[in-house]
Amino acid sequence: MDLASVNSLSYEDFVEVFGNVVEKCPIVAAAVWSRRPFSSLADLEASYNDFIDTLPESGKEGILRLHPDLAGRDLQGGTLTRESREEQGKAGLDTLTTLEVSRMARLNTEYKGHFGFPFVICARMNDKVTILRQLEERLG
Amino acid sequence: MDLASVNSLSYEDFVEVFGNVVEKCPIVAAAVWSRRPFSSLADLEASYNDFIDTLPESGKEGILRLHPDLAGRDLQGGTLTRESREEQGKAGLDTLTTLEVSRMARLNTEYKGHFGFPFVICARMNDKVTILRQLEERLG
Repeated sequence: MDLASVNSLSYEDFVEVFGNVVEKCPIVAAAVWSRRPFSSLADLEASYNDFIDTLPESGKEGILRLHPDLAGRDLQGGTLTRESREEQGKAGLDTLTTLEVSRMARLNTEYKGHFGFPFVICARMNDKVTILRQLEERLG
Repeated sequence: MDLASVNSLSYEDFVEVFGNVVEKCPIVAAAVWSRRPFSSLADLEASYNDFIDTLPESGKEGILRLHPDLAGRDLQGGTLTRESREEQGKAGLDTLTTLEVSRMARLNTEYKGHFGFPFVICARMNDKVTILRQLEERLG
């Protein structure tokens, strides 16, 4: 889809296409639509960042709270969004051993109890070994 | 559910219970959770209003853009959330004649083109006659 097409989308279609750029937060796309026309892909991306920057801290935490746990019940139960399933799959989180699954669950629970939001990391740019290590380090 | 139970909910359970208070915007509940413990139901409600007040105008418009059209394709297609279906049903919007459905669709389209968000009114406190009249008046 080229930029002219993006700029001519109704808000319904814009939310349909870009609504899950911020997982489970279609309000971000619905708000960003106000900024059209976008002059470039970078401008579209900056509009997302700018909107998130305007949110109070609780709103930014809210975004994290809607993010699925890594290797959590959404992945196990098959209820992840397609985008997250692909990302978690690339990191090898869909082929954890039973032991790794329970270790990840224990660490996730501890992390959420401590910080009030889930552990989030770019699964596309990490694998299960580095993800588990980072999770332990942040709790350390 | 009493106040002590609400205050002891994890953010996952809080979002599960209150996530659709603002239709399709679970981020509001996920953010409001930061304000617990709530001292009363009024305090919980005020926390919702306060969070929405902090949003830039585009964010408030974004909330409206995620709201289903009255008597729109979600109602016709059976994809409305339970809460909205009940509200629209109480206003008689689920028993419109074919003529009324097409009149409502035409006015909704005109309204969205003009304002950039859908016509929203408290369906629980209105019926189809007053809803159609108000919609025409706002476009007048």
